[in-house]
Amino acid sequence: MAKSPEVEHPNKAFGWAARDSSGQLSPLNFSRRATGEKDVTFKILYCGICHTDLHMVKNEWGTSTYPLIPGHEIVGVVTEVGSKVQKFKVGDKVGVGCMVGSCHSCDNCANNLEKYCPEMIYTYGVKYFDGTTTHGGYSDIMVADEHFVVRIPDNLPLDAVAPLLCAGITVYSPLKFYGLDKPGMQVGVVGLGGLGHVAVKFAKAMGVKVTVISTSPNKKKEALEHLGADSFLVSKDQDQMQAAQGTLDGIIDTVSAQHPLQPLIGLLKTQGKLLWLVHPRSRLSYQSFHYSWMVASYSCCQCISTKKLCINKFYGMTGRKLVGGSCIGGMKETQEMIDFAAKHNITADIEVIPIDYVNTAMERL
Amino acid sequence: MAKSPEVEHPNKAFGWAARDSSGQLSPLNFSRRATGEKDVTFKILYCGICHTDLHMVKNEWGTSTYPLIPGHEIVGVVTEVGSKVQKFKVGDKVGVGCMVGSCHSCDNCANNLEKYCPEMIYTYGVKYFDGTTTHGGYSDIMVADEHFVVRIPDNLPLDAVAPLLCAGITVYSPLKFYGLDKPGMQVGVVGLGGLGHVAVKFAKAMGVKVTVISTSPNKKKEALEHLGADSFLVSKDQDQMQAAQGTLDGIIDTVSAQHPLQPLIGLLKTQGKLLWLVHPRSRLSYQSFHYSWMVASYSCCQCISTKKLCINKFYGMTGRKLVGGSCIGGMKETQEMIDFAAKHNITADIEVIPIDYVNTAMERL
Repeated sequence: MAKSPEVEHPNKAFGWAARDSSGQLSPLNFSRRATGEKDVTFKILYCGICHTDLHMVKNEWGTSTYPLIPGHEIVGVVTEVGSKVQKFKVGDKVGVGCMVGSCHSCDNCANNLEKYCPEMIYTYGVKYFDGTTTHGGYSDIMVADEHFVVRIPDNLPLDAVAPLLCAGITVYSPLKFYGLDKPGMQVGVVGLGGLGHVAVKFAKAMGVKVTVISTSPNKKKEALEHLGADSFLVSKDQDQMQAAQGTLDGIIDTVSAQHPLQPLIGLLKTQGKLLWLVHPRSRLSYQSFHYSWMVASYSCCQCISTKKLCINKFYGMTGRKLVGGSCIGGMKETQEMIDFAAKHNITADIEVIPIDYVNTAMERL
Repeated sequence: MAKSPEVEHPNKAFGWAARDSSGQLSPLNFSRRATGEKDVTFKILYCGICHTDLHMVKNEWGTSTYPLIPGHEIVGVVTEVGSKVQKFKVGDKVGVGCMVGSCHSCDNCANNLEKYCPEMIYTYGVKYFDGTTTHGGYSDIMVADEHFVVRIPDNLPLDAVAPLLCAGITVYSPLKFYGLDKPGMQVGVVGLGGLGHVAVKFAKAMGVKVTVISTSPNKKKEALEHLGADSFLVSKDQDQMQAAQGTLDGIIDTVSAQHPLQPLIGLLKTQGKLLWLVHPRSRLSYQSFHYSWMVASYSCCQCISTKKLCINKFYGMTGRKLVGGSCIGGMKETQEMIDFAAKHNITADIEVIPIDYVNTAMERL
């Protein structure tokens, strides 16, 4: 018979867990494995709250097992390292994102694309190599293979950097991969939620000219004054959209709600790129969550699972425009993203909440 | 009052024209402009017949004006060159494809992407710079700005090279642009019509491993033995498709009929590319047409105009796969394609028909 979460590992841990699909979390004593020779153990200081977590808590995808401890934007300070750990030492500030394991032998792993490894292990709610279930960051300590741990540079505030472990890499990776990171390029960002607002920050830091595209004129001030975007388009304004036809090298679309795509494709130059960065799993909002000090941060990103993309082939043909996607990024690139964020002082805009607010926060998502 | 086609220009010409939307062509005396200083005049020896021509003949897109002389895969021998022509001399074998003019000042033109120039002029049925209507290759002579004329190397047979001016560049350009031309890469080709069969030939010549994907097991022999493909997949065979999941770097999809796309996307590796090369205008089959000697060639390519592409976003996210399109190519690349074809002895598989068969041939399309 399998041991209970509380005693299956030697190290006591404490977290907030869902026990069923009601959507409520409550305190849980569980355990973490002993620090393996390649493992890093760290005290969790902040963790993002994401709608993915709520989906998992409510078993909305039918894959959840209970008790379930969510959280996949986890930051803290190293308390112990294994004998063969090379990159970290006690006291380092570190983070773990969406994944904690992969096969290390497939082509994807060989190309630093662990996210696309068929054996990739999510940070919580799935089987780890030892047969136990992974547990996320709504807890007090974390143990992870150093390969899946990133270093957080000292100048980045831990609370506001947590969301970058998901939203940051989700926008940084495609900007680089699809070549939209060249100074002077014109890039559109659709939506100013958790993904969109960091997309603007990263793109601006890359030297790109950013046009924010939103259904809401109310976002203009935030886009131009707070985030430093170069221009703003109201997507429902036909005249504005018409005047901007053929002006963008690429578009980062972060909106999961059904919305017309052809007007966006029309904004692209020849060979322009429309990129969806919404996750395969529906995410309605996004919060960073500080367990130990009972505060959390807030932002908002969105994604989608079952809706379909429909575009007229014509647009692909006549302008050699492409439609592509991306999902977070590999570990090497995640570290690169964090280092870039540190260099350019990029963090997420957050709201910090107390831990006893977590159930209310989840309702707000 | 506008002059009639027969007298608007000084040089007498003869062709086969549609006079109305009945679908029938009949002989027409018309005229061509005098050879301008940058013009090349050539005697037409062969011209492809394409379903686009039939659409235009029947005014199925509502843009046709009559009389209309179709034909946009035109090859022949130079009879006169203008004083400022630099690339051609009398006696050269040359060809003209889908376009005869562009603005030469936009970004697309500057980047050798005349096809995407907003002022691009099609080879027939539209206004030329002088206000007269362009006429295509179902005729005896052609006059075109040398910028839109390509040189046909001596080792290529003129009848079988004609379709390359459309089908050839339509597959060559995206193989290069999307980086699917690297030796050892694995590329799928869906459909073995006019586009598909030349896609196999070009990809093989690039050193790519080619998998032909077809609904029909009957195509296997043609694919493997005649065209030299490396493997063959029956798209309706679930076991074969399952076994090939995640094996292809890219797929050239040449089938316009509605067909499931997600099984194709499943065949792609991480970061794989699904490319539609079907034209913005519906094309059901394709023939090369030899006017002067009253023979024509036959092949088949397909395209689509109004149908929509629907895919689940999920696939783009989880494997960073992209969906892209392409439409013929610029003039520099068209010459490069023809030179590549000459080096590797690539031609289209054709059926040559007599000119008095043209109406029957069009019915067969």
